[in-house]
Amino acid sequence: MGQLERIGVSLDTELLSMFDKLIAKQGYRSRSEAIRDLVRRQLSEERLGDPKAKAVAAVFLVYDHHSTKLTDRLISIQHTHTHGSSLNVISSLHVHLDEHDCLEVIVLRGQVGEINKVAESILSMKGVKLGRLNIVAK
Amino acid sequence: MGQLERIGVSLDTELLSMFDKLIAKQGYRSRSEAIRDLVRRQLSEERLGDPKAKAVAAVFLVYDHHSTKLTDRLISIQHTHTHGSSLNVISSLHVHLDEHDCLEVIVLRGQVGEINKVAESILSMKGVKLGRLNIVAK
Amino acid sequence: MGQLERIGVSLDTELLSMFDKLIAKQGYRSRSEAIRDLVRRQLSEERLGDPKAKAVAAVFLVYDHHSTKLTDRLISIQHTHTHGSSLNVISSLHVHLDEHDCLEVIVLRGQVGEINKVAESILSMKGVKLGRLNIVAK
Amino acid sequence: MGQLERIGVSLDTELLSMFDKLIAKQGYRSRSEAIRDLVRRQLSEERLGDPKAKAVAAVFLVYDHHSTKLTDRLISIQHTHTHGSSLNVISSLHVHLDEHDCLEVIVLRGQVGEINKVAESILSMKGVKLGRLNIVAK
Repeated sequence: MGQLERIGVSLDTELLSMFDKLIAKQGYRSRSEAIRDLVRRQLSEERLGDPKAKAVAAVFLVYDHHSTKLTDRLISIQHTHTHGSSLNVISSLHVHLDEHDCLEVIVLRGQVGEINKVAESILSMKGVKLGRLNIVAK
Repeated sequence: MGQLERIGVSLDTELLSMFDKLIAKQGYRSRSEAIRDLVRRQLSEERLGDPKAKAVAAVFLVYDHHSTKLTDRLISIQHTHTHGSSLNVISSLHVHLDEHDCLEVIVLRGQVGEINKVAESILSMKGVKLGRLNIVAK
Repeated sequence: MGQLERIGVSLDTELLSMFDKLIAKQGYRSRSEAIRDLVRRQLSEERLGDPKAKAVAAVFLVYDHHSTKLTDRLISIQHTHTHGSSLNVISSLHVHLDEHDCLEVIVLRGQVGEINKVAESILSMKGVKLGRLNIVAK
Repeated sequence: MGQLERIGVSLDTELLSMFDKLIAKQGYRSRSEAIRDLVRRQLSEERLGDPKAKAVAAVFLVYDHHSTKLTDRLISIQHTHTHGSSLNVISSLHVHLDEHDCLEVIVLRGQVGEINKVAESILSMKGVKLGRLNIVAK
């Protein structure tokens, strides 16, 4: 964290008392900490609107490994979209759910626009039974 | 608004400068105003976890008025779920989209748990082509 | 509905029996009806990825009518974005929640890209305590 | 897959032709395959409404490893909620994003109700900058 600045904030008493209860429950040691987290979250959401903003994301999918060649296609999707770009597949996690289904989580880092494009390509693939994109601006 | 209290908050300079830019863009006249809104939103989200909390909601649905008797069923759903409860249908808005489809928005007020139950009953009805629940604790 | 075509679909017995139970609960009179709805919903979701696709949407927001001039800004936002475009504000619903807060639902019709832009402008406005965009391709 | 049954489905020509285009793009080899996936997804969504249904989930979170003792608390949360229950933490993935932030994905298996409870406990923890629950009934 860089240099700290102190600002004054006016809240009405009732709001403040509810906020104090909530942050105590969440384990914060000070209002400043809690408000910093709120501000960071707000800024992060805002930046997701900018396709050039840097972000980190996890694509979550459950798929039938018989009916897809997900691994192959995933690799080819990456090649298509990442050529000359800064998109990075950092890591992935694979869980064998049963005889048919696998769960895969793919962690990506790059620009919001690129991440959205790749995630769409993955999630619209055949055999993907459920898919979600989790993304946060960094 | 009730009585105001003034608290001090420490943020690092960079975070504060990004926050100032964002809230200027959004039209806030002061940091206090912006932070109050963040705090209120946070409290509102938290309360949605409590089925007894008071909330207001809008159920949004697009449906085929030929294949459903939505109006009839909607009334009966309300009777089933609201007996002895404080759930209220405040208002609704109806738009005729084309020869098949209608858009309906139903505004409800009551406890989170009751609203969720009624919304599910509505959204799982036959002929509902798209449905969403928008809910906010009040 | 236009001319009907009949196709054959293979499902395994267990899946079919669960599907039959679900659609009975939802009030469908035939599998064809239920599958038509699934297919329509899928196509509708797909089309939302295309900024040029036609869509209908409801913007849901709760806001403090003291701290915003939402009505004024809403009108100016529409003027900014709809000049030369086919975006239409069809209807809106307004509920007075309490001394501070209003709930507003604004129904829009136009291209996906335009709707997203206008919705963002509205939802990022100061004083908006909660906002959601509900959109369906039509 | 168990024993196959063949059913007839009526769709209007235009809907069918749009569906054929979509599923070709997604790489399906037959309408049956595509419709089976739609049916499975629908059943899966439905089951999520039942707190007793079996599900698999991934909790995605970005957090500051300085301000939380997430690892410790995560373990204690599991102990609190899983005693006598069948909730299982299958796997987790950890990525060091920068000097402050970590990304963690935790894969859980168990009943919908239990997963929701644990996910809430995790996501409401201090220092969690972004969190999401991805869940699918299995």
